[in-house]
Amino acid sequence: MGGADLVIASNRGPLSFTLDSAGAPVAAGPAGGLAGALHPLLEGSGATWVACAMSDADRLAADAGLMSQPGLELVTVRPDPDAYRMAYDVVSNSTLWFCHHHLFDLVRRPRSGARWSVAWDAYRALNASFAATVAEMANDGAAVLVQDYHLCLVPGLLAKQRPDLKIVHFSHTPFADPNFFRVLPTDTGRELLSGMAAATACGFHTARWEAAYLGCCADMGVDPGATFVSPLGPDPARLDARAASDGCRAARSRIDALVGDRQVVVRVDRVEPSKNLLRGFWAFDEFLERHPEWRGKVVMLALGYTSRDSLAEYLAYGTEVEHAVARVNDRWGTDDWRPVILDVADDPDRSFAALIRYDVLLVNAVRDGLNLVAKEGPLVNEHDGVLVLSREAGAFEELQGPALAVNPFDVAETAEVLAEALAMPRVERSRRAAELRDLVLRRQASDWLADLLAAAGS
Amino acid sequence: MGGADLVIASNRGPLSFTLDSAGAPVAAGPAGGLAGALHPLLEGSGATWVACAMSDADRLAADAGLMSQPGLELVTVRPDPDAYRMAYDVVSNSTLWFCHHHLFDLVRRPRSGARWSVAWDAYRALNASFAATVAEMANDGAAVLVQDYHLCLVPGLLAKQRPDLKIVHFSHTPFADPNFFRVLPTDTGRELLSGMAAATACGFHTARWEAAYLGCCADMGVDPGATFVSPLGPDPARLDARAASDGCRAARSRIDALVGDRQVVVRVDRVEPSKNLLRGFWAFDEFLERHPEWRGKVVMLALGYTSRDSLAEYLAYGTEVEHAVARVNDRWGTDDWRPVILDVADDPDRSFAALIRYDVLLVNAVRDGLNLVAKEGPLVNEHDGVLVLSREAGAFEELQGPALAVNPFDVAETAEVLAEALAMPRVERSRRAAELRDLVLRRQASDWLADLLAAAGS
Repeated sequence: MGGADLVIASNRGPLSFTLDSAGAPVAAGPAGGLAGALHPLLEGSGATWVACAMSDADRLAADAGLMSQPGLELVTVRPDPDAYRMAYDVVSNSTLWFCHHHLFDLVRRPRSGARWSVAWDAYRALNASFAATVAEMANDGAAVLVQDYHLCLVPGLLAKQRPDLKIVHFSHTPFADPNFFRVLPTDTGRELLSGMAAATACGFHTARWEAAYLGCCADMGVDPGATFVSPLGPDPARLDARAASDGCRAARSRIDALVGDRQVVVRVDRVEPSKNLLRGFWAFDEFLERHPEWRGKVVMLALGYTSRDSLAEYLAYGTEVEHAVARVNDRWGTDDWRPVILDVADDPDRSFAALIRYDVLLVNAVRDGLNLVAKEGPLVNEHDGVLVLSREAGAFEELQGPALAVNPFDVAETAEVLAEALAMPRVERSRRAAELRDLVLRRQASDWLADLLAAAGS
Repeated sequence: MGGADLVIASNRGPLSFTLDSAGAPVAAGPAGGLAGALHPLLEGSGATWVACAMSDADRLAADAGLMSQPGLELVTVRPDPDAYRMAYDVVSNSTLWFCHHHLFDLVRRPRSGARWSVAWDAYRALNASFAATVAEMANDGAAVLVQDYHLCLVPGLLAKQRPDLKIVHFSHTPFADPNFFRVLPTDTGRELLSGMAAATACGFHTARWEAAYLGCCADMGVDPGATFVSPLGPDPARLDARAASDGCRAARSRIDALVGDRQVVVRVDRVEPSKNLLRGFWAFDEFLERHPEWRGKVVMLALGYTSRDSLAEYLAYGTEVEHAVARVNDRWGTDDWRPVILDVADDPDRSFAALIRYDVLLVNAVRDGLNLVAKEGPLVNEHDGVLVLSREAGAFEELQGPALAVNPFDVAETAEVLAEALAMPRVERSRRAAELRDLVLRRQASDWLADLLAAAGS
């Protein structure tokens, strides 16, 4: 294996595998989220991408050489499964994710008891494995792009071993306010910040998250190092190709048949607490109650996928979401009208087709690093659809002009904004949709990657 | 009724009543909290105190003239009970209290649905009743001291009707950070801030809460007006009198008989989520696990009282607290040693006697405006007891030197700090206790009242 001048490090890689009935690894569909956005940018770049083998299937696939791709070397880090569960479930997802999204029920969480220090040691060990692997793969003076909250300690560990490297850490989540960051064990918090601060530069999607990081560093007495802001953008060519695909065309026909000539409110999210599905359904319920003229004439299409279902919080949330939907449908549905169609079977073609079709796109996250759906939707939509956007999403900083803003905690307001969006005159819809497309196209995925490379001094 | 040059307005007054078996109003014990602290300062002052009649008994007592006291006129505001429940339970206690203490489980709360606007109207109406009553009672140019989050709109309403008055609003709670305050419906948040900002000055227990208020005003585009910081202090003469009372002496004997020559960790709180009883018991559990040498040799005495038991959150929390205690006692208790004694029967003599007796006083609130127990304890304690104090309590700003600090969210750290406190050498205990007493005595209750009057320009 040759060294690389560009190394990516992220928890999840661009390829994942499942096992077939014979126990052989089979490639799963394309990754979503961060890895899905990064992958097309790096194909053929000659970069090396270091990521976790997250399952037995991933480990088998790596052994079988299935991770190799032309022009992109994929290298796996292989933690012990129990240790990985502590690092990934307990530290990254149950603690750091909740912390940065301000989602702790602080009366009870975090607990930071004896189990915490075991999990924290596993997180440290996993970060050390990443650092060691990167140190081994990177050419002299290489740029290393470390992604997200799973790997906050990598810059600090790596800078010690390889001071020649140019290390960028980028946070795809929001960053916690100082008073929320303080709920972490004090030494842990300081170690996380110091780990990030050792990077050549730390990047964030918005000035708001950058300011929060700087505030946390000030509160903890950590020198924050250099920072920069670079919101991710969509990849228009890739979106065009998806829209033209057979799968997407077929999904569009199925959606058309399902909704008929009704207006369509769409949401596409991972089913998890930060996305605020519950208040979305409560708001739709209030909307139907207060606006009887819309009953039978509008469908809410809620598409997405479940994740992290090893966490009790996510399982509970998924159940609450199903109950909230059932309540709306029981209350308002008729023989020929189901008000909410919830489908979390993770059908990417269907989700994409829904973005083409919507009259209103609802993005009401309680807190969100960026929210790429809020940018991709307006770009591919063919109905001059209206974007209803949480002011707590990172994308709000760029899109707040033509989007309709909502306070995501305010169900009554969300209901009224949905009504406003659905009743918006065609001319205004068209004007706002055009303005949204213009704003979105100002920043594309390649601009984001260029910013990270520039921050690395490459 | 003559007018007054000094008017106090607070939700709860200094006297409350219950009904005896014949349905006649009988005075309940002395009020705790804010009203209990203010009352001795105002007796004989000639002030008028406007407060809610919170129950049928209070209303009957007011009708029967039982609210009158020499030199202190008590005037009741009498909202309709249903409207009061909306204003007090839904807005003040379920929303504003949770907001300022950062206690919302933001995944689900607040909801701010249709019910909110009804409750908000009730809160407005109650504040208008207070303003009207004060406007009627106050002499020309009088000083009006408006207390706490129940009455945020009073300064604005009153300033319009009576521009001659000098109005001070004082917050006894923490103040929410801007990003937490934003979870309120936007118009509501702005109205609350504008209501407070119309005062001659707004006061807070610490610079931290003042800064949060100023941050919220900046975020919402509200001119904050003048502000000041004035931490409340204890009333040493009153504490001396209580310590010398027969009731307190008897309670001390009972505690001595109960704990014998064991070391005693004491906590005295209202049983509610901000006080963080759960993590206190979890920490004591971890302490006993990690420090077997202390088993059988230490008792945690958790005294207090329940409140707001019309709120589901409080009922649930009370149950969780009981289970946490039962778990510690089941796990570690022996025939002759019960590790935790929990008593929430609201026995003020017993709570006071426990403050005299403690070896360690645990105040681990997740967030607290001030915490007067953290000041009263060191003043009355006779064992050179150690104060373990949450860095998120307002009193931490004054007492952080000689107190042992804890991150209230960190159960493992709290367990270790308890161990450190219990093992502290006598000489160090004595030095720290003396330093605490000196710090506490720098600010007495009368200083606080003088600050408020000065802020009113009186």
